[in-house]
Formats: sequence, C-alpha cells, structure tokens
Amino acid sequence: MSEFRHMMPAGKALFKDRHTTKANDLLQSYTSGMENEFGMAGVPLSKPSISHSGASFAPSAIREALKSFTTYSGEEGMDLTERIIDFGDIYMSPTDIIGNQERIVEGLTDVFATKAAKNWLVLGGDHSISYSSIKAFAGGKKVGVIQFDAHHDLRNTEDGGPTNGTPFRRLLEDNIIKGEHLSQIGIRDFTNAAAYDRYASEQGVTVYTMADVDRLTITKILDEEIQRLAEITDVIYLSVDMDVLDQAFAPGCPAIGPGGMDSKTLLKGILFASHYEKIQAMDIVEIDPSIDFRNMTSRLAAYVILQFMKGKKNR
Amino acid sequence: MSEFRHMMPAGKALFKDRHTTKANDLLQSYTSGMENEFGMAGVPLSKPSISHSGASFAPSAIREALKSFTTYSGEEGMDLTERIIDFGDIYMSPTDIIGNQERIVEGLTDVFATKAAKNWLVLGGDHSISYSSIKAFAGGKKVGVIQFDAHHDLRNTEDGGPTNGTPFRRLLEDNIIKGEHLSQIGIRDFTNAAAYDRYASEQGVTVYTMADVDRLTITKILDEEIQRLAEITDVIYLSVDMDVLDQAFAPGCPAIGPGGMDSKTLLKGILFASHYEKIQAMDIVEIDPSIDFRNMTSRLAAYVILQFMKGKKNR
Amino acid sequence: MSEFRHMMPAGKALFKDRHTTKANDLLQSYTSGMENEFGMAGVPLSKPSISHSGASFAPSAIREALKSFTTYSGEEGMDLTERIIDFGDIYMSPTDIIGNQERIVEGLTDVFATKAAKNWLVLGGDHSISYSSIKAFAGGKKVGVIQFDAHHDLRNTEDGGPTNGTPFRRLLEDNIIKGEHLSQIGIRDFTNAAAYDRYASEQGVTVYTMADVDRLTITKILDEEIQRLAEITDVIYLSVDMDVLDQAFAPGCPAIGPGGMDSKTLLKGILFASHYEKIQAMDIVEIDPSIDFRNMTSRLAAYVILQFMKGKKNR
Amino acid sequence: MSEFRHMMPAGKALFKDRHTTKANDLLQSYTSGMENEFGMAGVPLSKPSISHSGASFAPSAIREALKSFTTYSGEEGMDLTERIIDFGDIYMSPTDIIGNQERIVEGLTDVFATKAAKNWLVLGGDHSISYSSIKAFAGGKKVGVIQFDAHHDLRNTEDGGPTNGTPFRRLLEDNIIKGEHLSQIGIRDFTNAAAYDRYASEQGVTVYTMADVDRLTITKILDEEIQRLAEITDVIYLSVDMDVLDQAFAPGCPAIGPGGMDSKTLLKGILFASHYEKIQAMDIVEIDPSIDFRNMTSRLAAYVILQFMKGKKNR
Amino acid sequence: MSEFRHMMPAGKALFKDRHTTKANDLLQSYTSGMENEFGMAGVPLSKPSISHSGASFAPSAIREALKSFTTYSGEEGMDLTERIIDFGDIYMSPTDIIGNQERIVEGLTDVFATKAAKNWLVLGGDHSISYSSIKAFAGGKKVGVIQFDAHHDLRNTEDGGPTNGTPFRRLLEDNIIKGEHLSQIGIRDFTNAAAYDRYASEQGVTVYTMADVDRLTITKILDEEIQRLAEITDVIYLSVDMDVLDQAFAPGCPAIGPGGMDSKTLLKGILFASHYEKIQAMDIVEIDPSIDFRNMTSRLAAYVILQFMKGKKNR
Amino acid sequence: MSEFRHMMPAGKALFKDRHTTKANDLLQSYTSGMENEFGMAGVPLSKPSISHSGASFAPSAIREALKSFTTYSGEEGMDLTERIIDFGDIYMSPTDIIGNQERIVEGLTDVFATKAAKNWLVLGGDHSISYSSIKAFAGGKKVGVIQFDAHHDLRNTEDGGPTNGTPFRRLLEDNIIKGEHLSQIGIRDFTNAAAYDRYASEQGVTVYTMADVDRLTITKILDEEIQRLAEITDVIYLSVDMDVLDQAFAPGCPAIGPGGMDSKTLLKGILFASHYEKIQAMDIVEIDPSIDFRNMTSRLAAYVILQFMKGKKNR
Ligand SMILES: [Ca+2]
Ligand SMILES: [Ca+2]
Ligand SMILES: [Ca+2]
Ligand SMILES: [Ca+2]
Ligand SMILES: [Ca+2]
Ligand SMILES: [Ca+2]
Ligand SMILES: [Ca+2]
Ligand SMILES: [Ca+2]
Ligand SMILES: [Ca+2]
Ligand SMILES: [Ca+2]
Ligand SMILES: [Ca+2]
Ligand SMILES: [Ca+2]
Repeated sequence: MSEFRHMMPAGKALFKDRHTTKANDLLQSYTSGMENEFGMAGVPLSKPSISHSGASFAPSAIREALKSFTTYSGEEGMDLTERIIDFGDIYMSPTDIIGNQERIVEGLTDVFATKAAKNWLVLGGDHSISYSSIKAFAGGKKVGVIQFDAHHDLRNTEDGGPTNGTPFRRLLEDNIIKGEHLSQIGIRDFTNAAAYDRYASEQGVTVYTMADVDRLTITKILDEEIQRLAEITDVIYLSVDMDVLDQAFAPGCPAIGPGGMDSKTLLKGILFASHYEKIQAMDIVEIDPSIDFRNMTSRLAAYVILQFMKGKKNR
Repeated sequence: MSEFRHMMPAGKALFKDRHTTKANDLLQSYTSGMENEFGMAGVPLSKPSISHSGASFAPSAIREALKSFTTYSGEEGMDLTERIIDFGDIYMSPTDIIGNQERIVEGLTDVFATKAAKNWLVLGGDHSISYSSIKAFAGGKKVGVIQFDAHHDLRNTEDGGPTNGTPFRRLLEDNIIKGEHLSQIGIRDFTNAAAYDRYASEQGVTVYTMADVDRLTITKILDEEIQRLAEITDVIYLSVDMDVLDQAFAPGCPAIGPGGMDSKTLLKGILFASHYEKIQAMDIVEIDPSIDFRNMTSRLAAYVILQFMKGKKNR
Repeated sequence: MSEFRHMMPAGKALFKDRHTTKANDLLQSYTSGMENEFGMAGVPLSKPSISHSGASFAPSAIREALKSFTTYSGEEGMDLTERIIDFGDIYMSPTDIIGNQERIVEGLTDVFATKAAKNWLVLGGDHSISYSSIKAFAGGKKVGVIQFDAHHDLRNTEDGGPTNGTPFRRLLEDNIIKGEHLSQIGIRDFTNAAAYDRYASEQGVTVYTMADVDRLTITKILDEEIQRLAEITDVIYLSVDMDVLDQAFAPGCPAIGPGGMDSKTLLKGILFASHYEKIQAMDIVEIDPSIDFRNMTSRLAAYVILQFMKGKKNR
Repeated sequence: MSEFRHMMPAGKALFKDRHTTKANDLLQSYTSGMENEFGMAGVPLSKPSISHSGASFAPSAIREALKSFTTYSGEEGMDLTERIIDFGDIYMSPTDIIGNQERIVEGLTDVFATKAAKNWLVLGGDHSISYSSIKAFAGGKKVGVIQFDAHHDLRNTEDGGPTNGTPFRRLLEDNIIKGEHLSQIGIRDFTNAAAYDRYASEQGVTVYTMADVDRLTITKILDEEIQRLAEITDVIYLSVDMDVLDQAFAPGCPAIGPGGMDSKTLLKGILFASHYEKIQAMDIVEIDPSIDFRNMTSRLAAYVILQFMKGKKNR
Repeated sequence: MSEFRHMMPAGKALFKDRHTTKANDLLQSYTSGMENEFGMAGVPLSKPSISHSGASFAPSAIREALKSFTTYSGEEGMDLTERIIDFGDIYMSPTDIIGNQERIVEGLTDVFATKAAKNWLVLGGDHSISYSSIKAFAGGKKVGVIQFDAHHDLRNTEDGGPTNGTPFRRLLEDNIIKGEHLSQIGIRDFTNAAAYDRYASEQGVTVYTMADVDRLTITKILDEEIQRLAEITDVIYLSVDMDVLDQAFAPGCPAIGPGGMDSKTLLKGILFASHYEKIQAMDIVEIDPSIDFRNMTSRLAAYVILQFMKGKKNR
Repeated sequence: MSEFRHMMPAGKALFKDRHTTKANDLLQSYTSGMENEFGMAGVPLSKPSISHSGASFAPSAIREALKSFTTYSGEEGMDLTERIIDFGDIYMSPTDIIGNQERIVEGLTDVFATKAAKNWLVLGGDHSISYSSIKAFAGGKKVGVIQFDAHHDLRNTEDGGPTNGTPFRRLLEDNIIKGEHLSQIGIRDFTNAAAYDRYASEQGVTVYTMADVDRLTITKILDEEIQRLAEITDVIYLSVDMDVLDQAFAPGCPAIGPGGMDSKTLLKGILFASHYEKIQAMDIVEIDPSIDFRNMTSRLAAYVILQFMKGKKNR
C-alpha cells in the first residue's frame, strides 16, 4: 500500500509506538517446519454447556485481549521474544456436538504431533473441550492434570451426555488419566454435589478447596502437587477454568459466584507452576465474552498466558 | 404430564443431574403444622428508600439465585438437608407505604408465631423493613441486633419519615431495642453524619468501623459482641445490609461505594456468628437486582444464607 | 396461606386489579380430558442455530410477556375468555441436538394427538424447530405452510446439518410438504443466496419479497395464499420467524437487519389470517431474549398470539 | 471568572456556537413579577406507580434533553424566542405518597395563580400526577382534557389507592371533570380491562382507539374533539402519556408495548392541537430515564414541548 | 493449514454455506493495476466532533456488518459480483487533528487518482471528513453534492475550528463547491440555527426539510435535484449523514433525535439516486458503534452500500 | 421561590437530612479574594488519548460523585469543614488539541497564582493534562512528583505527539522536572515497553512495580519517597492515574487490566501521603465515566479526594 500517502490496511490505521511490542505481535500463523517455545490452538466450542454459553467466542476474544498487553515484564526485567505459533481454530459444526468433540481430538493430535512447540496453549471453549484436548495431548504418555476450578466436573454422563460438567469423569472412565493423576484446586462450597466429591475421593483425585487455598497458599499447594505428579507422570497439563475466580474478578464466566479465588492468587500460581519443566500445556476455558464486562475476563486470560510464558522463560 | 413423551412443566425443561440437589430445592411452601430448622419470608418493599430503589425485586432474585448453588459443603463434608419453610412474601400496596410497614409487622408476627422454624430468614426489601421485622421478631423478648452496614441508619424521621435511613433510630425511639442491644459493624467514613455517630454514642450503641474490622478481624468482633449481647438479651438478630460490602463485591446495592468489606470477610462472619444458638434470625437487605451486574449481589446473598445454614447445622 | 395476615405465595405479592384479567391468566396446565380453543407447547431449543442464539429462553419469555397484556380487545369490544391449555416444554438434552429434534416430533405428536385444542401455538426456539413441529402437526394430513421470514431457510444440510437455516428444505426433501404447499412472505434482499431463491422456484414455493409486501399489502397476499392453499391442503400452519420484522421493531432476533416489515403489518396479517378456519397452528421462532431490549420482541410475540386468538374468536 | 484565562464555570467548558440558541436557553427561573408565554413545573413523583418506575427522574432528563435542540424551526422559518418561566420542581417526601399528591395540588395552584404564563408545561412523573395537576389547573374553571394514552387510567382505587392507573377515575369521581370533558386517544388492545372500557362509556368519556387513529388520522380526531370540548369547557389540558407511542419509538416508558402510535403522528398532533387558543396546558408523563435507551424518550418529550411552542407561536 | 485435520485460520472456524456469498467477500485489498466497479476507503476520524464521538470505529464496524449480508438481491433477481477494491484506512495521529484532515485529502487524492474504480465508497468518521473527501474527489472537476442530513453543517469555523458541524461551510468558503452545487435533504426542525438556514439561502444551497421529504417523496426530490445538478456539475457525490434518520432507525448516531426519516425512505432514495451515472461517490458518516444497539446503524450502513451497488448494477 | 408552597429549584426537590452535610456542599465557586485550605479545577480534555476516551466527562462525574459522600469521618471523629474553592473547568476547543494543552498551562497558572488555596485538586481528563498542570504548578519551583500508574507514560512524542502516554517524558525533556524528582508507583508487567523502563532508569526516575508495592507496602514506599523528595524539591505533586488500580476496583478506566492495586491500598496511600506538608497538589486522571459501571470509578475518585482532605486536616 506504499504507493498511497497515509493509507494503511483496513482496521490498522492505529497508533503505533515504535518502541513497543504488543503481546499479540508474538502470534505467528503456523507454516510447515516452524518451531518455537509456544504453540496455540483455539477450540471455539460451547454448545455442550449445561447453561447457555458463548464461550465459543473466547479464542478470538483472548487473542484480541493480547493486544492490550506488551511483551515486557518489568518485574523480571525481560522481554518475551519467543513467538507463539498459532495453529488457528478447530472447525465446529453447528449441529454435530459429539462430532465436534471428536474433531478436537483429531485436530489437536495433528497439531501436537508437529512437536513445533515446547509448550502448548489451548483456548476454549467450555470445559468439555479439556477432555478432547487432554486426550490428544496424552497420546501414549502418562499425563498429570492440575485443574483450577470451582467445580469437580465429574458428573455422570447419562444426564446430558458429555457436557462441560463431565470432562474429568470421562478422562477417568476412558482411562486417559488415573484419579491420582488429577489434582483439583479451588473447589468451592455449594457448587458441587456430595456424590461427586465422594467420587473424586474414591478415584483418588486430590482436591484442594478454596479454604485450603486460603490456608495453605497457592504456591505451597502447587509445589506439593507438581512434585507429586512429576514423579508419577510424564508430563503435566494445567486446565484453567476461569470460574475458579471469584465473580468480582472474572465477571464473564457463565457460572459466576462468590467465595472464589482472587486474580492475584491465580496469576501467582500460574507463574509458579510454569517454572516446572514437566508442565507443558495449559488450557483456559469457561469465558463467555458476550456477557463479560469490558472483556475483563479475557484480559485476565491473556495475562494468565503471559505469566505462563514468563515462568517458562525465567525457568 | 407423564402421558406425553418428553414434556416437562413450562420452564422446567432444563438439565437435571440426578445426584445434585440445588439449594432452592430446600424451599418448601408452608402448610399448617409444618416444622423445620429454617423459615423464610420475603418483604418486597423499597418505596421507603431515600434514593430510587428496586430492592422490592430482591426476594425473588435471591430465591432464584439459590438455583445457582447446591446443598453440599465440601469444606465441611456435609449436605444441607433441612428444608426452608417458605411463607411467601408480604403483600404491598403501591401507594400506602406506612400501611405496608405495619402489614410487615402483622404478617411476620403471624409467621414467627407458628414457631415452625428454629431460625428465620427475612429477605428485603430496603433496610426500612428491618424495623418491622425486628419489631415482629421481638414480641415481648429482649432482642440483640448485629447490623452489618456502611451506615448507622439512625437518621431523624422528621426529614422524610420512616425511610431506609431510619430503622434503628425508630427501634430505639419506640423502645423495641435499647442502644446497648445494638451492634453496628462496618460503618464507613464519609458515609454518615457526625450527628448520627454522636447519637449512636449517646444511646450506647456499639460501633465498629471498617478500620476496626480490618484491624480486629471480623471473628474477633463478632465473638466479643455476640457474647456481650448473649448476656443481656434473649435472642440475637442479624441484619445484613449488603452495602457493608465494597462496591467491587456488591455492585447491585443502591448505595455502592469504595472502602467497604470484601465478600470473604462477610461470609466468614456469617458462618462464625451462626454457630451461636442465640442467633435465630437474619435479614438481608438493600439489593436492587435491576441495577446489579449479572445478579452478583443476589448470588452473594444466597451464599450468605447457605453460610448461615451451614453454621447452624455445624453447631 | 390464609392463616397469615398479608402473606402471599412467593413472587405473587403484586398489585392485582380485581377487574383485570391478565393474558397469562388464560394459561392452564394440561390435565387429562381437558379441551379448549387453544393449546400451547414450548420448544426451548436453539443450539442448532448457525449463530450464537439464546432462543431457548423464548418460551419462558413469551409466557412471561403475556403478563404485560390483558385479555380485552377494545377494538372488537370483546374479552378473550378461552383458556390456552399449556402442555409445557419439551425436554432438551444439552449435547444431543439431533435427538432433541426427534424428541420434539415425538412430544408434539403426543400433544397434538390429544385433540385437546382446535388451534395450536408452538413457541420456539430457533427456526429449526418448525421442521419437527410441522412434521408432528402433519401426521398424515396435507399441510400448507405460510412462513413469515426474511430468509428462505432452504439451505443445503450438508453444510452444518439440520440448522435453523434448513427447516423448509428438510420438509421438502422428506416429503412432509410439497413446494406448492409453502408460501414465504417477507423475503429480504441481501439476506439469502441466489441458489436458494432458485431452489424455491424449482420446488414451486411461492415467494413474496418485502417489496411485494409493500406493494401488494399483507392482507392481499394472505388472502390470495390462504385461498390457494386451502384448496390443496387439509390445514394451514403459520410459521412466524420474528426476523421478518425490521430491526427497529424486533431488536431481539439473532439475525436483525434493516429493510423489514413493521410490526403493525405483521399484527394485521396475523389477525387477518387467523380468521380462516383452516389455519390451525402457529409457531413463533427466532427470539433471543438475552440480547433483546426490554423484552420488546417477546412482548410483540405475545401480541401476535393475542391477535391470533382475537381472529379465531372473531371468526 | 474573567480574571483567569480560559476558565469557565464547572460543567460549562463546552463548545458554544455564537449563532445558535439551544432550547434550554429559553428556560428562566421564575422571579416575582415575571410574565411570559410559557411556564414550566416539574413533578418528580413516581412512587405511586403500579410497577417499578423511575419517572421521578424525567423532569431533569427532559430539561436536559432540551439542550439537544435549538430554538429554530426551519419548517416555519421562525425562531422560538419566548422564555419558558421555570418554577422548578415540587418537593417530594420519600415516604408520604398521599401527602406528595396533595402538595402537587398546592404547589401548582400557587404556580398557576401567578398567571405568569399563558401556557403551562408540567413535567411528570408518572400519570398519577395528572390528577393533581388538572385539579390545580381547574380552579373553578371547566377543564376539557385530551389524554394521549394506551390506557384508560380509570382503575378502581380500592385496589392499590391513587396509583398511576387511576388519575382520570379520580378526576371523574371527585367531580373535577365530567366524562364528556375527557377525550382519550390511542387506547390500545389487550392493554385495558373490559370493565374500564365500560366505565368510560358509562361516564360519557370519548375514546379513540389506535385503530381509530390509524383510520381517521390524528388531526381529524383532534379537530373534532377540540371543537367539541371548546364549546363545553373553558380551557383544554393535554395530558401526554408517552406510552401512547409504540415501543419502537418510546423505549423508555415503564409500560412499553407494540401496536402503538409512531412518533411523527404524536408530533403532528401536538402541533395541530396547540394552534387552538383554548389549549393552555400540557403535561408529559410516564418516562423512566433509568431504563430508556440513550434518553430517546426524553428527547422525544423535548420535541413535543417544542412542537407545542411552535404551534402556540404560529397560531 | 491443510496438513491438520479440521484446523482453520484463527477466527474463521465458522459455519460456511457453499452456495452463499457474503457481501464482505466482495472486498478485495487493492494491488497495483487492479480495476473494478467499486472502490472503498475508510476514514477513522472523529476527534473533530463537537460532542464525544466514537465514529472512528465505524469503518471497521461497517465492513464487519457486510458479513451479515449476502450479495443476492431477490427483488432484482441478481447477484452482486463486482468486487469492491478496498484501499484500507487513512492513518490518524492521536493529537494532530488538522494534520489528519489534510492527510485525508492527500490519501484520498492518491486513491481516486488510480481511477481503479468507477464508483467510490468512503466510510467515515464524523461528518468533518466529507470536507476532505469531497476536496480530494473534486480535483479540478465541478462536483455536485447531495447531503442527507438533519443538520446544515454550515457553522462558522471561528467557534471550534473545522468540526463536524462545518464541512459544507468550509467547502463553500474554500470555493471547492458553490452553493448551487449543494443540495441538503432531511433538514430537521429545532436542530439548526436560523443563522445557518439564512446562510444556506444566501449561498444558493437547496434545502429540503423533513416535511418536504414527507410531502414530496424522496424520489421526487432526488429526481429533481440530480437532474438539476447533472446539468451544472461534472459529477455528483452523495454524503450520507446517518442522523438524517429518526432515532428509532439509527440509534447509534451521536446526534440522535426524533422527527427524522425512516430507513426505508433512505434505502429507496439511495437505490434511486445510484441509477444515475453522474453519481460516482458516496460517503457514510456519523455512526458511533460504541453507543449503538447491536450495531443496528452499521448494519443499515452496509445495506445502504448494497443499495448503492444494486442501483449501479441495475443502471 | 419561597412564595410557592413546596416548590424547589429545578433538580433539587430531593430528600435533605438536616443533620447531614454532603461532600459536594464543600464546593464553593471562586470569587475574588477568597482563601481556603483547598482549591479545585477541572480539565475536561481527553482527545489526546491514544485510545478512545471520554475522560473529558470526569470532572463533572467526580464532582457529582461527591454528592454520594458526607463530610464526616468516623474513623477520625472529625468533620471536614473547609471549603473547596472551585475555579471551574478550562475551556476546550473541539479541534485544537495542542492549543488546549497550552490553555491548561495558562489557566492553571492563573488559578495557582491566586494562592487562594493551600492544596490543589486537579480533575482530569486523560493523563496528558498532568504535563500542563505540573508545568503550571511548578512556576519556578522544584517540584517532586509521585505518580500512581500502571504505566510509565514516558513514550516518545514522535509517534503520536503529546498523548496521554507522554506527560512525564515531556516534563523531563522540557526540564520542568528532573528524573530524580519523579517517583512512579504501581508500574505493571506487560503494560509497558522495555525501552521506557530503560529510559526511566537512565533518567534516574524511581520505579516501584506492583510486586514492590505488594512486598514493601504502600506506606513504606511513600514514606521513603516523600522523605527523599522533600529534601530535593520545594513541593510535591501527586498524580493519580486511576488505572494503577486492578480492573475489579476501577472498571471505568480506559486501560483496564488485572494485576493492579486494590482500592484500599490506594486510599491508605493517599491518606498517608497527604499528612506531609510538602504535598500540596493532586490530580486524578484517566476515568471515562461513559464506560464505567455505575460510576464506581468516579465514586472512588471522590473518596480519594476525601482521604486527601482528611490527611491534610489531621496533619
Ligand atoms: Ca470446569
Ligand atoms: Ca467451573
Ligand atoms: Ca442500612
Ligand atoms: Ca447501608
Ligand atoms: Ca427462519
Ligand atoms: Ca429468518
Ligand atoms: Ca396513563
Ligand atoms: Ca399509559
Ligand atoms: Ca452532518
Ligand atoms: Ca447531522
Ligand atoms: Ca498514565
Ligand atoms: Ca496508566
């Protein structure tokens, strides 16, 4: 477009500071042979949700929110310079929910198979996508899972099928992970049924309630769990359901409520966890940008990604 | 409706997990002779408010918010199983405010007289309803009142009559309670007049400011006050004005502002207080669902109720 | 509740004028053997939608909107007094979309089989539900369909399956109706593909564009079409996609746009059509209450129902 | 403030075009002895409303909306130059509704008694204020009333007292006006009870439904009614309930609905009516700015005032 | 991305109907030598506005709104197939408003100089951009301008400089057009100052008020004006200020108000006008997407563009 | 207005408690010779902002928010009684941004020159106004600046001119302050560019990140910085960019994000700092009331002012 004075591509006629790199500038569409520290894929699926959810808008909203951040951490005095290889989003049929869930497994299997990245970022979507993502991520490996969530997500699947209330039940039932490989952090009162707490217990799932988080601190818990999982698994996957946060900090989750984590605790936890080499993937789920306030929850998700990247770099 | 395949009553064709009891499932409309741990009545009155208020919508909004919670506390490993006997709402005339306030006294007197419940939950409405509710609750008994509030609510009644700024002044002036029977927690700077702070003093009302709460902790304050009141009164009533909370945690109160309590402090306080047997009633007031964000404040009110119930059960 | 002064059932402590009957008072839950002029069923399904849609909330929103109207038509000097037998809503699985579409056929087949009502009101949901509803309604009969819509809804089903863009294509392909039995009114420019206009033509579907409506008037068109269909079918079904209306009049449809019908034209058309005895069913679809302004579109849907009832009574 | 460069009074540092007079510049606070063409008073009362209403905010919102208009009518090639003497608003007690209604009578009686203006503009508030305003306006005179409204407002007062559904019933019952002195225009289907239509009939009230308006045109109706009323009354008062308009044109009325008047019809009617000398007062009621979209309804109210003034000037 | 199953570029994993062409598919970024029927450029400038305006977001919002439309006109039985060459947006400095206005002239001069398109679409921005756009468009030619607007936009520039209230004044003062070359349609009462109506007169500007439009019809006016201008100018430019529309139809304009045009009238006018060969450019201005309701006003703008294209094709 | 019963000035017919002084009652328009503890000026400029900003509405919104507070601090047992002399707002041209910035210097220079107040409150506007304000405040004096901000605001001015990203760069480059005179508190990760952190370092600016604030406490930091600055400067100016706060506490800032300060920390810091005599001015910037939730951020700004006043009184 250089032949015209002052013309810029549509939508780009924005202020640009020559010394500032925006976090979204790190995104780079995948082309064959590419390799880098981070890989990303979007999974815009929320029709499996029990309640009305527009979490399918979140992959775009989170990528967009990266524009609100720079690559520079003053706390660490370092710039994030590694590119995030963006593999795009997985195609979703409007009416074939089960097929969509299978396509996520297939698509992410292909993506992970490239080994193009050392660490993977998966953008949901509702929490049902973590079943597919973790299944694809596991391949034949033993995967440990650290789940930040107000809910167990261990519901029976007879009532409603593979909803966003079931991913970890299905991972256990399908032997993709074992109970002892799953650690749930931030589980909240009056937000789960007794039956599923019992089920978690029976399966050997480790559960830290919000009171545990407040009492033990997030870093203590993560330190213990990551070390425990590191010994019994090949690799660890973080599954971040944003509703682990209190409604005041994540107003855009479908299942908001009080009594949750504040955002600094989550951010500190992600930074802490990502220092561990065995942690090689993270998904972020349950953000519905269509009901959020000023994309606060997507902004927070973008910050979660940056903390993860900072931790990896700083390792 | 069983003769038709797949038909459900209107509005109920929702997902149902067979193992989950929703908190609103505990509500049970009163029929004669019924007895249980908890009783509930709604008081949908907010026309006495000084400012424009839709707090009359709160009884419905809070009952609705109970649908967002289950009955299970993982922290305590116990299920709330006692029913809440729901006596319904008190009829409100559109134009007869004073009559409405008298009808609340009459209606709640009849409700409390059933002795159907050990503990009572009263859903406002604006704070003016606490005058009527406490008057009905007192009957001939000596009632201690612990008021969570940013405001004294001790205004003179010549300027505007029995508004939501006056309930505790009127209780004192009408000798329904004595000053020493009233404990105010969370009183905030630049939110009250000097004259009413002085009046509280003169009347022997105990006042804990937000700075006191931050310095002493909510449990310390409640421990001291409940013990003090327990000695001089027959029974204690909690009056929870949600605007005791900081605006970030209770965005749906008419009189929002900064500098208030966070929601965890309130929830901890309610749980702590409800362990005491003398605490036998709680009202929740000053939520305007029509200006809230995603019913956050009603959700929090529902959680307050569940904490109260948990404390009672766990006693 | 009569033993307590002033107590009303929860949520009912509202103003009541003794001389006024609200339109929702006409709703009466079905019990065996009941018969009346009108029957109603809700179909809260919108997951088949191509775009994000909360049309599943519409059955409740429309029933609620009936509370904003009375039963009295001053224009005709008559009161609607016939009850609407409400069969409730059809159960929807969160994850089994195709199964839901089959369950709608089964459920409505059972409902229609009661012959409890002379005229039927079906509340969607997105437009995909009309396939199931018309299939159930047809039984063995020849059904004429008058579709108010900005869109043909004749998309191929390979791209996305049985979405809300396909109901009439599927009805034709499954031989439930013939092309000459379908009349589309309000089809709009730049809102459809050439291929589907051609398909309509080839199938013998009658199409009236918005320019036709403006030029010929709605009553002229309806008069002609109803007479034509009456001769070749046993019964006529109105399918009212609210997006036939201009966005200024129906702000709560997922696919809003300019260049559509104004609300008076639609209301006049419904009244006119309902005078014909062969018109015995109407569905109302494509209202998403979660994105509407002050439930305007659901209010309009309620008015559409009342016009239909007025026409039937006045016949 | 002239000693400081560039300083303006707080809130006034706005763009000012030297050649443009804003409509609100015509407002002039009353001081003794003042006389002019127009007088204005605000009546910020909406607590008598049957439904939750913030119409008490409308007097301020309408005055504010006058800032969006100039004084110049290009259609007539004339500038409005007469001042509107602003008598301010009537004080409202938060809890004494009946007293407020009496104070409106007293306050407006004093205002009208000044004879400072030839024509009066009264800004509600809900429609209950028209009782007080017309009572004050009548003094001993015979007043004709032309009411633009979707509703009769002839409810019995036993159910709820002097609400916004009763002003014209009360005027009739208190013999302030006679049935034949009242003309209702825009009465809508399914918006009133049969009993009140009958009551209107029995009292000799003239009723024009929306279908009448569409069929006869607003100017025909007004011409007939004004001439009829002019013969039997001393003076005529317009009472403009903005919900006479369709919801698409007046989204900020508490009782919005479809099937109403469009805004051009109302504006044309007001202009037409105001040419008649006997028309000497107008109230505008039932705007709730707190639920409006971008103050559209208050902007329209401001335009109604300007049409009234244009008609008077152009007389 | 074809090496991965189901992966699509980020943000594109959407439903795609193989037979449907979306209107935005017609957009094609300019590359050297390209030629087609239509050219487009965005001018994201709204800081010159007198009131707070986010009209700088409109070029993106309008392009985005084109996604809501197809290319097919059923009314005409034809598909729009010509590409719109998109030259992108003009760079805007955050602080140099006057420089921005000059850069628009330079950028558009370069764009128009390509002669790549027969007809030009310029997307504002506030109305101040029309000065620059028309200046660039004129080059040495005599340009006729048909302005759809509620306002004259002939303010003096001493009060506030080259704001959105001044573009046509500046065109006249700078001799870029003559008064007789300017035709203003839809000018509204109480929306302009007498001084500027007088100025229009003195300059020989033709003015059609809203009453004129209602009385004469838009096609009559356009027919007359286009023929008149065609004789005295080389080429005609349409400048469409969306606030010519009534607030009910264009809720997203900064200066909304009642008494304006309905959207069908505007759409009909644009279609009619675009049949004339001398009409070779159109701008659309004064849409602020940040205050609109569901992008209604941008959707309407997209429809205006499509009507223009339809008229050109159908010529 | 005393000659009329119940009439109050327009907009003032509100509840008034005779014993309560509202914080806005302390505002007093300046007249010559006036002297008091506090002076205030509004600077309604936000067009220099890099992103779309309505911060120009903040001076009015903050003054309005003072109405939500009283003058009484129960924590200190004292009433604020000193008046705030309000010098009004500085006139802003719609199109001359640079001129506006110069006019701010001139206007505030004249205001400060009165020496009418001991302490000054400047209400922005975006942060660009702090350049002008500090320049005017400095006169010939050495000014220390304590900046609460998530951002350095040290951008180069070639990219975009004197935006809200540049005020402190420009103060340094123009030698109005030296690097060692500037202390930045609350600087956040991923919110700044490395180049500007480096620039801060090179210039000798002191930087406290959010992690520093969390680790050291706000009072420790302020104590150290104020003492340091007190020794090398004549007077200290607080510049409070509200986006130093976490998005949960200041939802109305243009550049919201997570990871920031909570409101209690800011309020404590302001109270602490204002005890120091050398602190004699404070600005509050970057609040956009048009995108806030219920004016929360302006309410917080009002509380910041009151804390400042409390600290000064309590000194
Ligand atoms: Ca989950
Ligand atoms: Ca969850
Ligand atoms: Ca209170
Ligand atoms: Ca309070
Ligand atoms: Ca359809
Ligand atoms: Ca449609
Ligand atoms: Ca009325
Ligand atoms: Ca009415
Ligand atoms: Ca214009
Ligand atoms: Ca305009
Ligand atoms: Ca800043
Ligand atoms: Ca900042």
